[in-house]
Amino acid sequence: MELYFMGTNAGVPSLERNVTSLALRLFDERRTFWLFDCGEATQHQILRSPLKLSKLEYIFITHLHGDHLFGLPGLISSRAYQGGNTPLTLFGPPGLKKFIMTALEISESRISYSLEVVEHEGGILFEDESFCVESALLDHRIDSFGYRITEKDQPGKLDIEMLARHGIKPGPMYGKLKRGESINLPDGSLLHSTDVLGISKPGRIVTILGDTRPCEAAVQLAQDADVLVHESTFLHELAETAYTYHHSTTKQAAEAAKRAGAKQLFLTHFSSRYKYNDQLQQLEREAREVFPQSDLAREHVMYPILRHG
Amino acid sequence: MELYFMGTNAGVPSLERNVTSLALRLFDERRTFWLFDCGEATQHQILRSPLKLSKLEYIFITHLHGDHLFGLPGLISSRAYQGGNTPLTLFGPPGLKKFIMTALEISESRISYSLEVVEHEGGILFEDESFCVESALLDHRIDSFGYRITEKDQPGKLDIEMLARHGIKPGPMYGKLKRGESINLPDGSLLHSTDVLGISKPGRIVTILGDTRPCEAAVQLAQDADVLVHESTFLHELAETAYTYHHSTTKQAAEAAKRAGAKQLFLTHFSSRYKYNDQLQQLEREAREVFPQSDLAREHVMYPILRHG
Ligand SMILES: [Zn+2]
Ligand SMILES: [Zn+2]
Repeated sequence: MELYFMGTNAGVPSLERNVTSLALRLFDERRTFWLFDCGEATQHQILRSPLKLSKLEYIFITHLHGDHLFGLPGLISSRAYQGGNTPLTLFGPPGLKKFIMTALEISESRISYSLEVVEHEGGILFEDESFCVESALLDHRIDSFGYRITEKDQPGKLDIEMLARHGIKPGPMYGKLKRGESINLPDGSLLHSTDVLGISKPGRIVTILGDTRPCEAAVQLAQDADVLVHESTFLHELAETAYTYHHSTTKQAAEAAKRAGAKQLFLTHFSSRYKYNDQLQQLEREAREVFPQSDLAREHVMYPILRHG
Repeated sequence: MELYFMGTNAGVPSLERNVTSLALRLFDERRTFWLFDCGEATQHQILRSPLKLSKLEYIFITHLHGDHLFGLPGLISSRAYQGGNTPLTLFGPPGLKKFIMTALEISESRISYSLEVVEHEGGILFEDESFCVESALLDHRIDSFGYRITEKDQPGKLDIEMLARHGIKPGPMYGKLKRGESINLPDGSLLHSTDVLGISKPGRIVTILGDTRPCEAAVQLAQDADVLVHESTFLHELAETAYTYHHSTTKQAAEAAKRAGAKQLFLTHFSSRYKYNDQLQQLEREAREVFPQSDLAREHVMYPILRHG
């Protein structure tokens, strides 16, 4: 499970950074990746990344501002062109479907795979055996959502070879051992679950927020998260500007991470005014004063998501 | 007057080339530039060019396929963001307005300048004292238009200093001289127009076509053009594929230039299958066998439009 940022600039692309998009790579977990927001030229960024559009499984749109949205029609079309044939599901605020469908209809785009657009207003969006994704409304100029991705705990693996040596084959005994119970071996002795069951891996929590002013929903979504991705459009000296434009400062992002008990914070969505490395490092320093485990999101870097559980 | 290609790839962006967009730079003529098609990430290409979005005056869309269209919402929004405040007018096939308006409404984009979308089905689109633009339908899977831009002849300039020495001030005499007539000087002698009027510059003709199979309309639009920009998606060995997908081969593009009596041909809209320089040069060679003044369009090169008149 890794994060791969493809756009970290606010509002417009710059020569240095693209508009917002972030991939959650789930290659080890499910051989796919998910996308959070899709600013213009996200498909171009994917071409320059180790990701393959055909492996894209879900897209979550935080809000409908153009710098988070306008890359969708091209990406959806190109995925078909590049042989993507597995289903693709989009989640986002009401209005998303009209935008997508208008673009695809006007351009007479032929989408060869199953495309579903799910408009939501928060809540649990989906759950399967390994992941659950829920969403809540933040505080922005238009409806903007945060997403909390919960990976389920992975039970330890049974030592199949040792079990075979004891004459135990796949079946009800396996289930008992997996549930932590002991079993009687054919020779009458007792086999403890802990002798053949590996250590279980606690699931991780990843919280990815859309544009927002500081708000309670952000802190709740980020509760105990292993990693929180939070916008930090401005330095705190521009707190008033941030408030006016419904954004957060680096310090506010760090405070949210701290209050939520998150383990790691990635700052993103930087105003174009911060061009140079020393300016960006100032953003990072400001966040670290409040929350030391803060890092600037850099585009085209693969960040592993650590287990802190 | 220059051509500046920002996208020369067909269908999808590649690592080497972007999807279609072409700027007609009119800095010397009117301190603006015009855009022909606007594939995704055209605004990103403009950032890497000597062009400034605020100087963009007209956009002409050839047809509504996504690779010619999906860069519009972002470019329109960013132009406002970057302080563009002069009017911007878009010309394109019916459907263009719905696409633009849906994108801007859904994203609640605030456009600070006057934006007009003119849907057309060919004919003369506009005419002012220096330029005329007309359009005609080509032969593609969906309605696709070509544009013929005619620069009007520029009359020679009067030698103001010499006229002053003869005691002639701005007024009716100027008009007579400009019309090629002679006038009587205060001392009674005759002043011939040719003595004080510079050589007139013949206007140039630029023809820029959308995706098309070979067709009569292409040849008519390109009649005597100083430069013709023609798609050439495939080598002629793939003429059947080109026909199936409603495109042209390099050879067909060259034949159109030849039949039209055009002076120069730029090939563009290359299939992604042509990646390497030697493959592209093969496209160029094929065209030059039929029409020697053929060149591949290269992105981020400024091509002056020569006067052949
Ligand atoms: Zn926003
Ligand atoms: Zn087309």
